[in-house]
Amino acid sequence: MKMKSEFKKISIIGLGLIGTSILHAIKAKQIEGVTTFAYDVNSKHRDIVSEMKIATYVCDEIHNAVKEADLVILAVPVGSMKTVAISIASSLKENAIVTDTGSTKSSVINDVNPYIPKSVNFIPSHPLAGTEYSGPQSGFSSLFENRYWLIICNKETDNTKKLAKFFKNFGAIVETVSAEYHDKILAITSHLPHLIAYTIVGTASDLEADLKNDVIKFSASGFRDFTRIAASDPIMWRDVFLNNSEAVLEMLQRFNEDLSDLQKAIRKKQGQKLHSFFSRTRSIRKKIIEAGQI
Amino acid sequence: MKMKSEFKKISIIGLGLIGTSILHAIKAKQIEGVTTFAYDVNSKHRDIVSEMKIATYVCDEIHNAVKEADLVILAVPVGSMKTVAISIASSLKENAIVTDTGSTKSSVINDVNPYIPKSVNFIPSHPLAGTEYSGPQSGFSSLFENRYWLIICNKETDNTKKLAKFFKNFGAIVETVSAEYHDKILAITSHLPHLIAYTIVGTASDLEADLKNDVIKFSASGFRDFTRIAASDPIMWRDVFLNNSEAVLEMLQRFNEDLSDLQKAIRKKQGQKLHSFFSRTRSIRKKIIEAGQI
Repeated sequence: MKMKSEFKKISIIGLGLIGTSILHAIKAKQIEGVTTFAYDVNSKHRDIVSEMKIATYVCDEIHNAVKEADLVILAVPVGSMKTVAISIASSLKENAIVTDTGSTKSSVINDVNPYIPKSVNFIPSHPLAGTEYSGPQSGFSSLFENRYWLIICNKETDNTKKLAKFFKNFGAIVETVSAEYHDKILAITSHLPHLIAYTIVGTASDLEADLKNDVIKFSASGFRDFTRIAASDPIMWRDVFLNNSEAVLEMLQRFNEDLSDLQKAIRKKQGQKLHSFFSRTRSIRKKIIEAGQI
Repeated sequence: MKMKSEFKKISIIGLGLIGTSILHAIKAKQIEGVTTFAYDVNSKHRDIVSEMKIATYVCDEIHNAVKEADLVILAVPVGSMKTVAISIASSLKENAIVTDTGSTKSSVINDVNPYIPKSVNFIPSHPLAGTEYSGPQSGFSSLFENRYWLIICNKETDNTKKLAKFFKNFGAIVETVSAEYHDKILAITSHLPHLIAYTIVGTASDLEADLKNDVIKFSASGFRDFTRIAASDPIMWRDVFLNNSEAVLEMLQRFNEDLSDLQKAIRKKQGQKLHSFFSRTRSIRKKIIEAGQI
């Protein structure tokens, strides 16, 4: 069944995992009457996307990619949002909607909003979807299926509804939240886990050469999952931590307190305390499975 | 193709994930001429295994399960090893081999060795295989395929070779290491990652009710993996931390130092430092994939 789009001309800025997945999804879902304009600052990425034939046009200049668009999606690392906003500001069409897919929202609003003309609507968003792979060849059409796509607004408008309807074409579940709340939730569910995974894989790799080789050789369940997470795009994650530092540092402080507690329980051999802590966390997993977010 | 076993009568003590997986594997691999004797302290677990028909005999008394065996496998939580060793000591057959599958080795040697008669050979081992599930219904025959099964010894003997050959029947890759080395490697590849996962899931569940519900609802990649790890058997893991506390606390100290470094880099907005740290960990993942341990 072909789907109808609320938007006829869509611009995708940034051709990594998210940007190319959106292009794949538009194509795969056979969303009718849509023309896509793709741009990436890296010419090699543009060439790859041209060869993949997933965009109607791959533009060599960013202003050409946005000037006709009624929807512009910024899928670049959050540290690049400001530069991109400045580059596109004067080329945006009146009444166009600009959204982004960044993992931090307060920072993106601060970086993008000042440059968006009054006649254009900036509605930040964030698809809670991803893999440890990055680059133009990592995208796939089903990335957003059954995943939340959060729209950042304090109240719904015709434009946020239009955007929500569009994201639902990809099988996403759309909800609206505030920027502050988003940044807090993501700090604990995504940013802190990534920081921890990066840390532990780093700690392991610092162990002396002999042990290190066997760390890789005998890498058990647990560590393997951490290495997958710690293989995520370094630029994206550098930018996340720089741009959501407040919420991340707050969650990190809570985490450190809890870890100190467990450390003390291990040193003091408090079996009952360890057992009850480990039993409690088990039920969280069950709830996530019930929520269908596995 | 049917396989021949070095052992004719095999006793499995402890009918959880590992114990029942061994029974499943012996059955599935059609290892010829083997009689299995299964025992668990929990009568419900014995009943379940009886119904599953994966053991030749399910014994109601532990001494009946070991008295004829030429191989006894202790697949109980490491905190129960001493009690089990005491219960079976006087019933063990002369020249029998006793092994275990515990996740900590120095503690098991300390707990078991004093009770094993001189005419019996105790050779500790550890299959690096598992899932987040536990109990008699969680076992499956392919659990050990392409996974390391470490035998603890300072030099190989006819008995360690016999045991290695037996484990290879299940598709395991067998290597020998010392107990101290095992405990150090596992502290960083398995024990610390589990401790960290338990901690972060606990931290998240402590957040106030509103945020908590959305933590589950919007649980992103990263956190989801941690909840899987933190859903592992609480008794097994309590025992691991109590019995490998020294190596775990040493690794935890290294981890804490590295985490403090990253925390400082986030606070000071040191993008270059974060980027180079996150780039380095990516290569570890690649090496694990190359080592075929995914």
